[in-house]
Amino acid sequence: MKLPNFYASGPLDRAGHRRKSPDWLAERLRHPDTRIQLVWRSQHLVIDTAEGPRPIILTPALASDLIERAAEVVLLGLADDVAHFALDVSALETPLAALDLPEASFRDLRAVGPLIGRDEGAMLAYARGLMHWHARHRFCGVCGAPTESIDAGHVRRCTNPDCATSHFPRTDPAVIMLVEDGDKCLLGRQAVWTPGMYSTLAGFVEPGESLEDAVAREVFEETGIRVDSVCYHSSQPWPFPASIMLGFYAKALDRAIRVDETELEEAHWYSRAYLKDHPEMLPRRDSIARRLIEDWLTL
Amino acid sequence: MKLPNFYASGPLDRAGHRRKSPDWLAERLRHPDTRIQLVWRSQHLVIDTAEGPRPIILTPALASDLIERAAEVVLLGLADDVAHFALDVSALETPLAALDLPEASFRDLRAVGPLIGRDEGAMLAYARGLMHWHARHRFCGVCGAPTESIDAGHVRRCTNPDCATSHFPRTDPAVIMLVEDGDKCLLGRQAVWTPGMYSTLAGFVEPGESLEDAVAREVFEETGIRVDSVCYHSSQPWPFPASIMLGFYAKALDRAIRVDETELEEAHWYSRAYLKDHPEMLPRRDSIARRLIEDWLTL
Repeated sequence: MKLPNFYASGPLDRAGHRRKSPDWLAERLRHPDTRIQLVWRSQHLVIDTAEGPRPIILTPALASDLIERAAEVVLLGLADDVAHFALDVSALETPLAALDLPEASFRDLRAVGPLIGRDEGAMLAYARGLMHWHARHRFCGVCGAPTESIDAGHVRRCTNPDCATSHFPRTDPAVIMLVEDGDKCLLGRQAVWTPGMYSTLAGFVEPGESLEDAVAREVFEETGIRVDSVCYHSSQPWPFPASIMLGFYAKALDRAIRVDETELEEAHWYSRAYLKDHPEMLPRRDSIARRLIEDWLTL
Repeated sequence: MKLPNFYASGPLDRAGHRRKSPDWLAERLRHPDTRIQLVWRSQHLVIDTAEGPRPIILTPALASDLIERAAEVVLLGLADDVAHFALDVSALETPLAALDLPEASFRDLRAVGPLIGRDEGAMLAYARGLMHWHARHRFCGVCGAPTESIDAGHVRRCTNPDCATSHFPRTDPAVIMLVEDGDKCLLGRQAVWTPGMYSTLAGFVEPGESLEDAVAREVFEETGIRVDSVCYHSSQPWPFPASIMLGFYAKALDRAIRVDETELEEAHWYSRAYLKDHPEMLPRRDSIARRLIEDWLTL
């Protein structure tokens, strides 16, 4: 089995059947073994150590005041029968004031993700993704009434009794693809990226498309290159803010690049030898883009 | 190359760069070559012929009155430089009254899909999916204000100037998987299905999961069976109402089935020989489930 991508395959059993058990949830939320993660404006509680940043997970006793004041309380799941919850404390200006943790701070997973462990990364990514969904779905898209969180934070229901639509977490499928032409692959960059960084092409799947259709459409739109032999590699949850990345390899049918400048600043063909000599130009270590490129370099 | 799944790989160039060209859109919407599809309460305009049901696509002249009264006008794309649009006429009680087509009727793609051509099926599925998204996102999830359609029907924007959030079409990723144990595969059925029909297991991907994680979780939740060797097969847009189906094969690590009766009515192991003798129990011809099973039967 291939190693899972970063942020995937976390340590929790999601225990979906517990989401509709209010008594069990209330008991577990205050159980001394329980572990609680905070999410504040899409950031996580982190402390710096000699080994780098480490996420801080609280006990119910430590988080007691915040449990009362959290906008959302979400059951993440179970690990070795220990329940893990996440609290959204974004409405508080200074949630740290409720905690005696002077060296802790809230940090963005985009910054600390590549520096923490795989299991920790997966748990933080899962919580971040759910809280982003809650924040974007406070009102019902069908009727405009407020929604409320039910099922331990995994469903939002419209509070208008004439509507009462249930809304489920949203995850946007996006394809990301390494296009190859013999010993060269196609990498591009967006103007907003770190200078000198190049990556695989990517884009969102539209209604009425297969993943393979989306790969071909995005590559053609962004670079004018037609592809075939579109072949699945792996997938990765990517909660920045709400995607699942679906990784593919594809073979180019054209060589000449015509960059769509509304999407990309530039795109070029790179040989394996060149990329091996220039690892500094590759995307971040926690990304499926990096994985697609590194796996291709070993082919 | 494998044959695409039904509803995928439609004949249209989506022409995304035209979505922000109001003059071009206005001119094309009335151009005599243009073709216009109606969507009424998730149904499509169909006429019965000796060869079976056929979708009816209108000219701008025929649809003129409905263009004025449509809740949504969406650019689907171009085929041979002919623009294809879809109109949402759901707000009208009797849209057929505006047309001189006495033998036409609105029919559900779930019923006519298996009886029409691949290209027609893909175009209807695409339009249905987009119109369902519009209907479910008339209000902004962030602030509750009304949204408005922009970019030729491919974006909805919040009309509250202090919010102005852009909302993009939603497609829910769902995994669907054939679990095998040697010469047998695992099929189940939900109580609401046509009696006697069995299919592969399936379920929605949750935030923080890879597709492969979701396959393993869903199979375990529904049947108590653990899997490995989770291997991608293909994907299919499935606008009933808003999914993309992501097809996998997986190998069972257990044999004993424990059905979760909140999800399934029953599940069993079936041999290739049995399934070949009982094609009447297989899912509908236009589904990726059918494809997964039929491809497995030939392995």
